[in-house]
Amino acid sequence: MARTQGSHSETTGPRIRAAAETLFARHGYAAVSMRQIAGAVGLQAGALYNYTPDKQSLLVDLMQRHMEALMGAWAQEVQGDTALAALEAFARFHIRFNLARRDAVFIAYNELRNLEPEGFAQIEALRNAYEGELAGILTAGREAGLFQLEEPRVTTRAVIALLNGVLTWYRDDGRLSLEEVESLHWQMVRRLVGV
Amino acid sequence: MARTQGSHSETTGPRIRAAAETLFARHGYAAVSMRQIAGAVGLQAGALYNYTPDKQSLLVDLMQRHMEALMGAWAQEVQGDTALAALEAFARFHIRFNLARRDAVFIAYNELRNLEPEGFAQIEALRNAYEGELAGILTAGREAGLFQLEEPRVTTRAVIALLNGVLTWYRDDGRLSLEEVESLHWQMVRRLVGV
Repeated sequence: MARTQGSHSETTGPRIRAAAETLFARHGYAAVSMRQIAGAVGLQAGALYNYTPDKQSLLVDLMQRHMEALMGAWAQEVQGDTALAALEAFARFHIRFNLARRDAVFIAYNELRNLEPEGFAQIEALRNAYEGELAGILTAGREAGLFQLEEPRVTTRAVIALLNGVLTWYRDDGRLSLEEVESLHWQMVRRLVGV
Repeated sequence: MARTQGSHSETTGPRIRAAAETLFARHGYAAVSMRQIAGAVGLQAGALYNYTPDKQSLLVDLMQRHMEALMGAWAQEVQGDTALAALEAFARFHIRFNLARRDAVFIAYNELRNLEPEGFAQIEALRNAYEGELAGILTAGREAGLFQLEEPRVTTRAVIALLNGVLTWYRDDGRLSLEEVESLHWQMVRRLVGV
């Protein structure tokens, strides 16, 4: 007899995470029960605890995997030779990577309030590392006399906030292509640092 | 015998809204029950229905009041004679008004997913009207040959997203004063439109 997909333990973990991500993004972490997550992947509530000790661990795991994937993908990007090329690479990468993972991004921002202190510290460290990548580019550009910016940390957060704005309105079937949206935002970021 | 504050029906409505706002912002709309809201203002769950037909109406009411207060306050601002002065007024106003109402802003963005179609349409119309104020300033500045911008609607949303970024990190007791944060963001917005 063929085994059903659900009986493969190596696929159950990813399916649990996918279901939790969808449910947390749709209803909010606090409104989702372990029973609902189990139901979404066809497990008994009790069996879910073979995969994760509790709902909080599942939330931290989702956020941590998202941030690590983000850092890992950015490390693979061709970042160019100049601060300007690196800034363009960052702006385009940030939009593209996160648009493909809107639920994960929504959770990463909106469920910080539901992290317990240890998980919060873990996720904050990853976020600081990612922001540090952009802050490094901005500082290098300023030191090279290319960029105008007063406070690298403030500019870093402003640029990330500006780029995240795309996630709230972009539609694949909208008037503008992803390439156009990337380019429009890159032009704004470029001007924002005075280039 | 002195009446308790809770027995004044004219103060109960505002207290219910304040409690709902705090609870929705902390736990998320879907996780908060009418019983919890009633408890927070010292009412029986049944008595809460004298003030609001249901939780959805309370959510729409909160969002609508926030957007109307935002529009009303913006209409009172001195907007200056030029597109540049109006843009500066808008940037500073948006930061200041929303920083004082973080819970309301958090709900306005994050609970859109929980609005039923009628309420969603109402709130979307108010949001479009507010974005239209900024889009009008940007378009006027472009027509006067002052601003560089390719797509007024895209720039509008990017500027609002950039300004909203402040709400995620600003602290009253932090290194930078509100005036400094406003000025730093105004400089970025100014450069973003090529001035």
